[in-house]
Amino acid sequence: MDKYQDIKEAAYQANMQLPKLGLVLFTFGNVSAANRNLGVFAIKPSGVPYEDLSPEKMVIVDFDGVTVEGSLRPSSDTKTHAVLYKHWENIGGIVHTHSTYATAWAQAQRDIPIYGTTHADHNTFDIPCAPPMNDEMIQGDYEYQTGFQIMNALESKGMSYEEMEMVLVGNHAPFTWGKTPEKAVYNSAVVEEVARMAYLTEQIRPSVPRLQDSLIRKHYDRKHGAGSYYGQ
Amino acid sequence: MDKYQDIKEAAYQANMQLPKLGLVLFTFGNVSAANRNLGVFAIKPSGVPYEDLSPEKMVIVDFDGVTVEGSLRPSSDTKTHAVLYKHWENIGGIVHTHSTYATAWAQAQRDIPIYGTTHADHNTFDIPCAPPMNDEMIQGDYEYQTGFQIMNALESKGMSYEEMEMVLVGNHAPFTWGKTPEKAVYNSAVVEEVARMAYLTEQIRPSVPRLQDSLIRKHYDRKHGAGSYYGQ
Amino acid sequence: MDKYQDIKEAAYQANMQLPKLGLVLFTFGNVSAANRNLGVFAIKPSGVPYEDLSPEKMVIVDFDGVTVEGSLRPSSDTKTHAVLYKHWENIGGIVHTHSTYATAWAQAQRDIPIYGTTHADHNTFDIPCAPPMNDEMIQGDYEYQTGFQIMNALESKGMSYEEMEMVLVGNHAPFTWGKTPEKAVYNSAVVEEVARMAYLTEQIRPSVPRLQDSLIRKHYDRKHGAGSYYGQ
Amino acid sequence: MDKYQDIKEAAYQANMQLPKLGLVLFTFGNVSAANRNLGVFAIKPSGVPYEDLSPEKMVIVDFDGVTVEGSLRPSSDTKTHAVLYKHWENIGGIVHTHSTYATAWAQAQRDIPIYGTTHADHNTFDIPCAPPMNDEMIQGDYEYQTGFQIMNALESKGMSYEEMEMVLVGNHAPFTWGKTPEKAVYNSAVVEEVARMAYLTEQIRPSVPRLQDSLIRKHYDRKHGAGSYYGQ
Repeated sequence: MDKYQDIKEAAYQANMQLPKLGLVLFTFGNVSAANRNLGVFAIKPSGVPYEDLSPEKMVIVDFDGVTVEGSLRPSSDTKTHAVLYKHWENIGGIVHTHSTYATAWAQAQRDIPIYGTTHADHNTFDIPCAPPMNDEMIQGDYEYQTGFQIMNALESKGMSYEEMEMVLVGNHAPFTWGKTPEKAVYNSAVVEEVARMAYLTEQIRPSVPRLQDSLIRKHYDRKHGAGSYYGQ
Repeated sequence: MDKYQDIKEAAYQANMQLPKLGLVLFTFGNVSAANRNLGVFAIKPSGVPYEDLSPEKMVIVDFDGVTVEGSLRPSSDTKTHAVLYKHWENIGGIVHTHSTYATAWAQAQRDIPIYGTTHADHNTFDIPCAPPMNDEMIQGDYEYQTGFQIMNALESKGMSYEEMEMVLVGNHAPFTWGKTPEKAVYNSAVVEEVARMAYLTEQIRPSVPRLQDSLIRKHYDRKHGAGSYYGQ
Repeated sequence: MDKYQDIKEAAYQANMQLPKLGLVLFTFGNVSAANRNLGVFAIKPSGVPYEDLSPEKMVIVDFDGVTVEGSLRPSSDTKTHAVLYKHWENIGGIVHTHSTYATAWAQAQRDIPIYGTTHADHNTFDIPCAPPMNDEMIQGDYEYQTGFQIMNALESKGMSYEEMEMVLVGNHAPFTWGKTPEKAVYNSAVVEEVARMAYLTEQIRPSVPRLQDSLIRKHYDRKHGAGSYYGQ
Repeated sequence: MDKYQDIKEAAYQANMQLPKLGLVLFTFGNVSAANRNLGVFAIKPSGVPYEDLSPEKMVIVDFDGVTVEGSLRPSSDTKTHAVLYKHWENIGGIVHTHSTYATAWAQAQRDIPIYGTTHADHNTFDIPCAPPMNDEMIQGDYEYQTGFQIMNALESKGMSYEEMEMVLVGNHAPFTWGKTPEKAVYNSAVVEEVARMAYLTEQIRPSVPRLQDSLIRKHYDRKHGAGSYYGQ
């Protein structure tokens, strides 16, 4: 009986959603699923095409980034996942993709402005873009530092990781998370669609204003507030 | 024998068209189907994925927005549907989506200008964008007010809901309607395509003029006028 | 034995290619196939969805636009087809779509500039956009006049319909033709792709020059010239 | 026993990937696969639709562009392939497509700037756009000259063909290569996606800077350097 079977299966299923949702080309993405009791997560092996994946091929890693089980090399972004799991107690899944529109905003090093209710249904802030790291951090333990860069991007703007479940890493691409791997995958599709809509909105009206506060609050609270009643 | 069977089936079938037409991500949309004799409509339950829908899961609601039958919660946009059914006697179906291009125009708070015959085949005006509501309306009975905001957008410009079967709600997304749920779904695909074409047209030629009146009239009348002969 | 069977079948098969190639939404398109010996063409019936088509439903029309056989109403664009068949002796098929990018250029009332070899592989000119008609022509025999407008667009620029097999009708959408219905359908996919590439090219470099003459000539001639050797 | 069977099969399989990856319309592309021991390559026959291809239809050509075996005419771009195989000893496959976004950059005659890590995961330079040839070269042995134009584009900027496996031919479209035909096909999908992201990045932020050197180096080296550990 494999005590990691649940998270291997969950990570496998969640990884397989990425190509179905059109969020990855080749192997440009990875999902992990955590077991908080055991202090580990299952993550996609490095460079393996989605069509060759199976639950058994998932690699088990602890929250310090040390491989616990698995014959394949874990995703090269593993340390970023480990840092986030270690510091954010209430997340159970993390996704990284290079989805086209979200990556374009990351390359532009811009936060995604909150322009409509599709965005406000999910959070109340511009989606933050973590600034690129300095040369020293990049040349050092890069993937580890990426985790801290993500955390700083939220903290410096007073955002909770439980509300803002998505971020852009400047010059790189989006990371998303959630209570479960499924929710993290959902968020990776949401950030891509919100990024696409915001791009189009600025093309249609370059001087467009951000969403008014009352509308941000209304849409967020009807889905996530105490008396939430959302769901379409 | 279920007296609501017909509209449950119609609402189910129409809802299932939205993902097929590429108009929704996850559950970002809903369709309702009305029975005018019984004074009710069937609408998608809140937050249920399209792949889990069935006719039995549709919720029956009256034109004041009160649930008449069904164990699931109706779409959070239900009151907007109710207002429109109550005031517009000749509509039998309503659709709400967050389709990408139409939503981008809504976020830009712009009417979609009539630039070509694809638009004029369906109506003779710029597709109106209802302005965002004031804070008081938003904090009050929001979805109910959205219905009136839609009605005002047409009335203030002298448009009939029988000709103009589509609207953008500013900062939010499109609503469409029609004599049947099928027609309302058709209209939701049309507004998305017209929105996409208008966006591209302005990119290709920023100073592009609106369509000349004679051409608007010709195309609309050959499809909808007394001696209509349209259909490709 | 039905003497029109061949063109009914050809028109049916060609019409069914349009949704497969992503060139039409709903019924926004039509293809016809001509029999020069019999002086007639088969054309899609008006307003019938592609999934309900069959060879038997095609309508037979002569080159003056008079229906010869068929219980359904022919496409509302039938007279445009008739004019072109009557005046251009060497064409055997005509296609009309509202494909997205080509229609956007038509709405912008701009010729599509020749920016690359993908364009020059098919013809040596900017793809002409026929100017919108005056009010009198529009209010008169509109679809008939559309045919002459197309012919004038080529003639006024010294183009042969045997080289330039595609045109934009200003404010409306593209028409294409060819020796066979298959070639006409091929051309409708080509004009859409060339329109998309030209749009992107101008976005990437607003002041981009047209293709140099020697390269236009080289690519066109290697595919269509006396010593043609093209085909990838 | 056919000594060319392996490369025929490899070229066939690689050609069939192009429509699956959405990189070609109709026959607008071709792949070749080389056997270095025999000094030949197998290439797609000219003008044959992908659905009609089979390994047996591949044409065998030597590195001077002379057909060695095969009843069909080889791709019109065959001499370009031959030049590259002759001069670049370590490549085993070449791909040419007219994929939409990469072709738009080629038509704009611009190098694709390195804006993000998706690009740096594959190489460390802007993807070069070879300038259009002069009239004499075009009117001469055009496809042969295209090969030299590609080689010059890399050499003039100090790039190795073993690092930079992709190029735009100005006014024309992309060529890619690699140690195997599979890798060359992979590169043709990468250049299309990188081209699309770079286009969107400039739309979102017109004055966007190139990627900083340390990040270029980090991402390239973690995948391709001595201590590479990449793979997602």
